Amino acid sequence: MKDILAIGAYPDWALDALIEDFGARQLSGPEALAELSQEERGRVRAVAYKGHKAFDASVMDMLPNLGLIANFGVGFDAIDIAAASERGIKVTNTPDVLNDDVADLAVALLIGQSRKLVEGSDWVRSGQWAEKGEMPMNRKVSGGKAGILGLGRIGREIADRLAAFKMEMHYYARSPKDTPGWTYHSDPVELAGAVDYLIVSLVGGPATEGFVTAGMLDALGPDGIIVNISRGSVIDEAALLDALEQNRIRGAGLDVFASEPNIDPRFLALDNVLLQPHQGSDTVETRAAMASLQRDNLRAFRKGEALLTPVN
Amino acid sequence: MKDILAIGAYPDWALDALIEDFGARQLSGPEALAELSQEERGRVRAVAYKGHKAFDASVMDMLPNLGLIANFGVGFDAIDIAAASERGIKVTNTPDVLNDDVADLAVALLIGQSRKLVEGSDWVRSGQWAEKGEMPMNRKVSGGKAGILGLGRIGREIADRLAAFKMEMHYYARSPKDTPGWTYHSDPVELAGAVDYLIVSLVGGPATEGFVTAGMLDALGPDGIIVNISRGSVIDEAALLDALEQNRIRGAGLDVFASEPNIDPRFLALDNVLLQPHQGSDTVETRAAMASLQRDNLRAFRKGEALLTPVN
Repeated sequence: MKDILAIGAYPDWALDALIEDFGARQLSGPEALAELSQEERGRVRAVAYKGHKAFDASVMDMLPNLGLIANFGVGFDAIDIAAASERGIKVTNTPDVLNDDVADLAVALLIGQSRKLVEGSDWVRSGQWAEKGEMPMNRKVSGGKAGILGLGRIGREIADRLAAFKMEMHYYARSPKDTPGWTYHSDPVELAGAVDYLIVSLVGGPATEGFVTAGMLDALGPDGIIVNISRGSVIDEAALLDALEQNRIRGAGLDVFASEPNIDPRFLALDNVLLQPHQGSDTVETRAAMASLQRDNLRAFRKGEALLTPVN
Repeated sequence: MKDILAIGAYPDWALDALIEDFGARQLSGPEALAELSQEERGRVRAVAYKGHKAFDASVMDMLPNLGLIANFGVGFDAIDIAAASERGIKVTNTPDVLNDDVADLAVALLIGQSRKLVEGSDWVRSGQWAEKGEMPMNRKVSGGKAGILGLGRIGREIADRLAAFKMEMHYYARSPKDTPGWTYHSDPVELAGAVDYLIVSLVGGPATEGFVTAGMLDALGPDGIIVNISRGSVIDEAALLDALEQNRIRGAGLDVFASEPNIDPRFLALDNVLLQPHQGSDTVETRAAMASLQRDNLRAFRKGEALLTPVN
């Protein structure tokens, strides 16, 4: 009956499940809605959304009977929630099932950047180890001071892991949390000034756009490393590039970018960044769990039952 | 007076300190002793040693008045301890100060291999992200079963970190240790069969040569990852290469090799290994601490005081 659209670049296994369970029809992105007839669009009751392209009011208005946008991913900053709520459209996401993966990657980005894992691999594979001896010294990680910018569910998972590396733990959040003696900072610039490693785990969206400023990077200082596994939008990326180019901070480990996947080419000229292609939740295990939760929300919607992980 | 030789490839800062504190003379390796006159060799009372070339009985016999070999590093498998003891030569190493660094690298090798950190970096830098979209899915780390092969001081540091990744912890040691509920295995093959990740943190030397056998790798199985941060000699490397080539294990994260730095070229053809150039302790902070401890041992020896970290 094609009342469910799968919009986005789904891997085959996930798309197959959406087709098998719901007879979903796939579109590559919101812009492809223009290819459907008005009648076809009128039949659509739910969208299984995957991607970072804007799903805004103008997209919603092309689907007059839309009741649910089931997002694949915890971050729903691509979806205009206010516009959805105004139209009576419910939005769901896939929280929690990806926390471990994202936290694991954050730790790997921090150690990987400080201990120069990519450069070490290159040192071996290029034959420089045999030719020149030891690779240049890198920098110790354990025992440093870590600052978690945003102690939500993912931030907490990151903090719990880093604490095992004998780190002094600091965090910023809107209000103090129940933690084992970690230091709360109500001012994010003060947090940056207190730590060696700043781990960005804020929620994306308009409220946090450019939250990490040039001033915060300068407070972090020339010995500091920043890691971002949340959204590229939360960092003033031009300021970050300036700081990295001028060695005003020591380095960065980044899984997310302002203009991904077409990232600013200035990143590619830097030797003090470890870059990843927004792979925070990109494991076999977690993608299966996210796809399953997305389908469970679609199924609940169809049956008129309570949604599992509503956003609005 | 040149009674102390600095033998090995020292970085300038470490060599400068040995020259300033002790008037040490540098040689590139044990083989360079042949360039010294018998009289010069007779004056040598102590060697500040750094490297993995054999420091055996024949080398010791070129230094008839040698009283101390102060090794730079915790592993002293290059030094024939029995031969040293027979000759009344004391040996010291630099334990503990490098535990954190080696443990950090072990964790980074495990996550880095499973989450494909080098491939992810290449995916971004080569432009494939923009061209092809998401990188191929990788595999979740947290929540797996970890097996520590050798729960000494470094093994314990690794275990304490991995436990924070919600792992079920298993270990092999010569006898059970006081642990927070981790499972002891007296049989290393049984350990390998019980876990997803096998972390090798055994002491090197003849007693552990080839300790990790083809049978242990098969027990680890096609979904298992092995990490080695101890010595290349503790793994039957031909068996490891066979297992990796035939995908009988999922992958490896290796900082050490049987014939480093001229590693077996079969490693370079593999896409399921994360290779590092024996950089376990190669940080600014830890190398300074190791060099300082080495000099402290030399100083104690000169003053006739108790050595800080004697091996024999």
